[in-house]
Order: sequence, then structure tokens, then C-alpha cells
Amino acid sequence: MNMSLASLFDAEGSVRKEEFIRVYEEIVEEELKEIGTSYKIPSFALEQIKFCASYNVPHGKLQRGTAVVDCYCAFANLEIEAIPEVDLRLACILGWCVEWLQAFFLVVDDIMDSSQTRRGQKCYYLLPKVGMNAINDAMILQSFIYRLLYKYFHDSECYVKLVDIFQQVTFITELGQLLDTGSQNATEDSFSLFTKENLERIYDYKTGNYTFYLPFALGLILARKDEGDTLKRVYSLCMELGKYFQAQDDFLDCFGDPEVTGKIGTDIEDNKCSWLIVNALALCSTDQMQTLKQCYGKRDSSCVEQVKNIYRKLGLVQLFEEFESSMYTTIRDQITLLDNNISKAPFLRVLDSLYRRKK
Amino acid sequence: MNMSLASLFDAEGSVRKEEFIRVYEEIVEEELKEIGTSYKIPSFALEQIKFCASYNVPHGKLQRGTAVVDCYCAFANLEIEAIPEVDLRLACILGWCVEWLQAFFLVVDDIMDSSQTRRGQKCYYLLPKVGMNAINDAMILQSFIYRLLYKYFHDSECYVKLVDIFQQVTFITELGQLLDTGSQNATEDSFSLFTKENLERIYDYKTGNYTFYLPFALGLILARKDEGDTLKRVYSLCMELGKYFQAQDDFLDCFGDPEVTGKIGTDIEDNKCSWLIVNALALCSTDQMQTLKQCYGKRDSSCVEQVKNIYRKLGLVQLFEEFESSMYTTIRDQITLLDNNISKAPFLRVLDSLYRRKK
Repeated sequence: MNMSLASLFDAEGSVRKEEFIRVYEEIVEEELKEIGTSYKIPSFALEQIKFCASYNVPHGKLQRGTAVVDCYCAFANLEIEAIPEVDLRLACILGWCVEWLQAFFLVVDDIMDSSQTRRGQKCYYLLPKVGMNAINDAMILQSFIYRLLYKYFHDSECYVKLVDIFQQVTFITELGQLLDTGSQNATEDSFSLFTKENLERIYDYKTGNYTFYLPFALGLILARKDEGDTLKRVYSLCMELGKYFQAQDDFLDCFGDPEVTGKIGTDIEDNKCSWLIVNALALCSTDQMQTLKQCYGKRDSSCVEQVKNIYRKLGLVQLFEEFESSMYTTIRDQITLLDNNISKAPFLRVLDSLYRRKK
Repeated sequence: MNMSLASLFDAEGSVRKEEFIRVYEEIVEEELKEIGTSYKIPSFALEQIKFCASYNVPHGKLQRGTAVVDCYCAFANLEIEAIPEVDLRLACILGWCVEWLQAFFLVVDDIMDSSQTRRGQKCYYLLPKVGMNAINDAMILQSFIYRLLYKYFHDSECYVKLVDIFQQVTFITELGQLLDTGSQNATEDSFSLFTKENLERIYDYKTGNYTFYLPFALGLILARKDEGDTLKRVYSLCMELGKYFQAQDDFLDCFGDPEVTGKIGTDIEDNKCSWLIVNALALCSTDQMQTLKQCYGKRDSSCVEQVKNIYRKLGLVQLFEEFESSMYTTIRDQITLLDNNISKAPFLRVLDSLYRRKK
């Protein structure tokens, strides 16, 4: 790679998405050239790999990927100008590894959930020329992570840590998926699985790990600030951020404005273990419980309305606002208690970006 | 683990399948206990992980898994009695990692191929309580490999080599799958992809790597005999074994006895890039080519019969016999040329087990 990264940041010091995407394009081009040379595969196969990556990876908000760069810079404790270009590039590459991981999860999740659209386009597996081969393509997306780690970090002392953390986070996210679908599809009494404990585990495993912990941890590892119990403390902080974020997601699924969120929620129809149903079950009367049991998980708009009515009657809208404020304060305090030798700025930026979000 | 492995070998020094399976049972039980403790997931989720593993992993001929143990013992160059029990157990664990990898591939391959049965039982994804969640379950199978490597090898100097080789072989096998289905489904002229070059790449990538190279390489790495260019030379030998094995598979698919092979071949109907069609295309007349173009890849028994007739007329049965004999000699010679400091016995055993196989 030989382009300059001088313009990676805007005047406020945030990562410019378009510059970050340029790094993606360089990485992919080089990788494809190397795969072509090493494995001498016919051009249709190279084209398919390229298409799959470009369809699934460099989209979305890229928050996880750019967060790695942001965290690295903050933890390295240097002025942006003082960070060697080579290290900045490595941070971008790690950021893209997180986006690759996300792409891998999304492609297979969409198949498992029979989803129709993703990030404003048709789900990958629904493309006529793709179909179920999407599974192998997703596996290739996953393999790219380890190819990139091998290529750019194999001789670095942090290589093993990087490989280990990607594998660990992958496994935990798979556990999260298992808990989520298992709670959703429980044939007998799913309500027995709609507990705060189970909900928090789903939040931690399905979201907290790869969305929050992974980018922060990669920034720390790359900046060599992962000694002692730092990672452990950052982990528990990230689980709180995950709970906060996912509870908002659950709330907006039901009470958000579709015009703003860009999607119509179906958690009630889907029998999802969500913040709302778990809190409703803790507060409801025997009669309300009866109604919830009859109406939750049904694809019927009057059932959905009845559930929403009970949510409203139980004051869940108000309760959620209180929950949001108190979570905000708790997490802020937890950030303050972090070791002084690591910058708190990236944690605060993430927390503030989530506060009272409407989409 | 605390059982004895004294009875792992029979009188001829071969690995006893039932003893090998006992190691599997120990590993899984311990792992599940650890996952339960570390992640505090509800019992239904642990049960599902256990069920998925037991349905998919400890079946089949276990040739790849036991080959790791066999290779390790041969390369360690010690009498079986002299091998420390702890090392024998590590060899078994690596053997199971290969079986886990195979299980992961088979579960997803069956979904992609819409297969019905596998190893005499219904395909995993067809079980009513599984369905498309088979994809996440397969991903958990894959994650188990890295959990096992982490648990049993993290402090060993060979950890990085082990992780790297599993990832590399996984990626190559995914490339093989991509080439295989791509050649099969090519919408325009698949015949242009039915070349010797393409066929050999499919063989190398889809079979040679994980079936032959991986077990031998793991044996070498564990026995610390992977220095210099040993792995490279073993790799090219294993690709020959893979070609030999897969060409037999292709031949038996068409001309094998279903009573003996246990399956009815459908390569012609499936438009597969196989040893037979590639050789037929190199030998056929313009008229025969025309017929092949009309009949290959059709689900029609008279078409299939016409293709088989051309194969017979072109003398492919005879040609295959010659190919088999000459491959046997070539591979034997190549084995003789291997470095004297590693045992040739396991290579010869594999070669002899393949020679003129009828199933």
C-alpha cells in the first residue's frame, strides 16, 4: 500500500468514512491479486469473492470499524500527526477485520432469519446467482479476517492476541445467536426464558462482545495498553454499553418512529426475548399475563396492539426513560473509574452517541 | 482427563476406533462443563451444542482423525509404549479437531447441496428442530476447533503453527467448494471449465488439503519434524494422494457397484467437473462432443446412459485402470524420495489403503 492517510481525519478528529473505505479498496485489491497468484483460480471465482465482499462489507455505518481507529489513536496517547502512518494503516486494517466479521454474521443471520433486506439492499442470499452458496461465501468472508491478520500482523508480538480475541468473540456471538433463537423458538413455554438474566446474556453475547468490546480491545492491544486487568475492566464496561444499546433497540422496535428508525419492528410477532416483554412480565397482573401469553409471538395486528397496550398501561415508556437515564449515569461513573493511563475519551464519545438516540 | 490410553492401539498398531471415540467423549464433556461455567447459558443451549456435536462429529470412518495419531506416532519415531501418555492424548485431540473441521464442512455442504442423507442418517439441517439454525450450529462446531487448540496448546511453541494451518486449510477448502459449485453451475458453457487444470485444482483444494495434508502436517508439527522444506514436500505428495483418491471417487460414482459403494452416483446429472468428463472431452469426436453437450447435466436417465456409453466407447474404464496404476507408482516413488529423517510408513499405509479401492 502506498497511498497517504494524511486526510483520514476531519477537522474534529473523526475518521472520514470515505478515506476509511479507500483502505478497504486497497486491501481487497491486494488480497485478490495474491489469491489469484497463489491459488491460480479461474477469474469467475475471484470475481465472486470480490463481489461478495463489496456487496456485504463496506456498507452500514462502519461505526465498529472506525471505532478501532479512534480507540487506537486515543489509547496511543499521541497527537494524530505524530502517529506513524504505518500504525494508522494497521489500525484501519483491524477496523476492517471487525467489519468483515460483522459482514460474515449478517450474511448468515439473514439466511437463518429469512430476512428480505439489509442495509437498504436485497439480502445477499436472495440474489439469484447466489442462493445457498451464500453460506460458503460467508465462510470466505470469515477466512479473510485471518488472512489479513496473518498478512499484516504475523511477525508482530500481538499476533496471537489478535487471533485469539477474534476467535473468542466469534464464539461468544454464536452463543448469543443460539440463546436468541432458542428463546424465540422455545416450543413449550418461552416465557420461562424471558428473564432478566437470559436477556442480559443475549445482550452481552450477541451485541456487547463484537460491537463494543472488540473495537475497544483491538485499540488497546494495538496501542500496547492491554496490560494487567485493563481488558477485563473494559470488557465489563462494554457489556454495559451493549445492554444500553440493545435495550434502546428493543424499545425503538416497538415505540420508535419508523420514519426515523427506517424499519418496522416485529419483535412482538417474532416472539423475541426483549427488554419490553421481560419488564412487562415482571410487572403485569395475572390477567395481563394471560393476555400476553395469548398474544405474544402471533402474526396478528390485533394481538400486537394488545401487547403494546399492556406495555403502555404498565408504564414501560416511562420506565424505559428512567432506565436510560440511570444507565447513562452508571456507565459514565464506570468510565471515570477506569485506569488513568488510558484515555477515557473514546468511551465517552460512544456513550454520548447512544444517549437518547431515536434511531 | 484421567483415563488411560494404554489400549488405544490394537495388536497391529492401528488406532482402535472405540478408544479414540472415548477421547471425544471426554473432550466434549469437559468442554460443555467449562462453557456452562464460563458463560452461564441455560441448559437448553448446552444440550443443543452437545446434540449437534454428537450428531455430526464422531461418525464416519474417522480416517482423518485417527491418521493424525498414526502419523504422530510414526514421526515421533518411538515405540508406542515409549510415547508419553500426555502426548498421545494431544495427538488424539488434534485428530478430533480434524474431525470437527470435517463435521463443520459437511453440515454446511449438505445445506448448499440440498442433500438428504449423510453417513446413513438424515442430514442435520433436515431435523425438524434444527432447520436453518444448522448454520449457526456449524459455526459453533468450527469454533470448537479453536477452543480446543487454545485449551490444550496455548502454551506450546507450536500453537501458532496449529492455528495457522487450520485457518489456511479451511480457506483453501472454501476455495475448493467455490470452484466446484462454480464449475457445476456455470450458466453458459460449463464445458470450458471442465479442464484438467481446473479439475486438479478442485481436487487439491476441496480434498487434498483437509483430507490428506492436514492430518500429516499435524503429525509432523506435533512430533517437531516440520523443519526445513518437509511440510512443503509433504504438501505436494498429499496433493497427489488427493488427486488419486478423488479420481477414484469420480470413477466409482459412475462405474462403481452401488451395492459396494453404498451410494448411487449423480455426477452426470449434477453437471460435475469430474475425472471422466474431463478425460472424455479430451478424447471425443465432434459428434460425441455434441451428444455430451446435449446430455451432460440433465436429470434424465436416457441422457445419463448416453453419456456413460460415450465414456465406455472412449475406453475410459481401461484408461482409468492405467491411470490408477501409474499414479500408484508415481506416488510410491515420491514417498521414497522423502527425507530419511521422517517415517515413510504412514504415507505408504494411506497409499495402500486407497489402491484399487472399490468403495
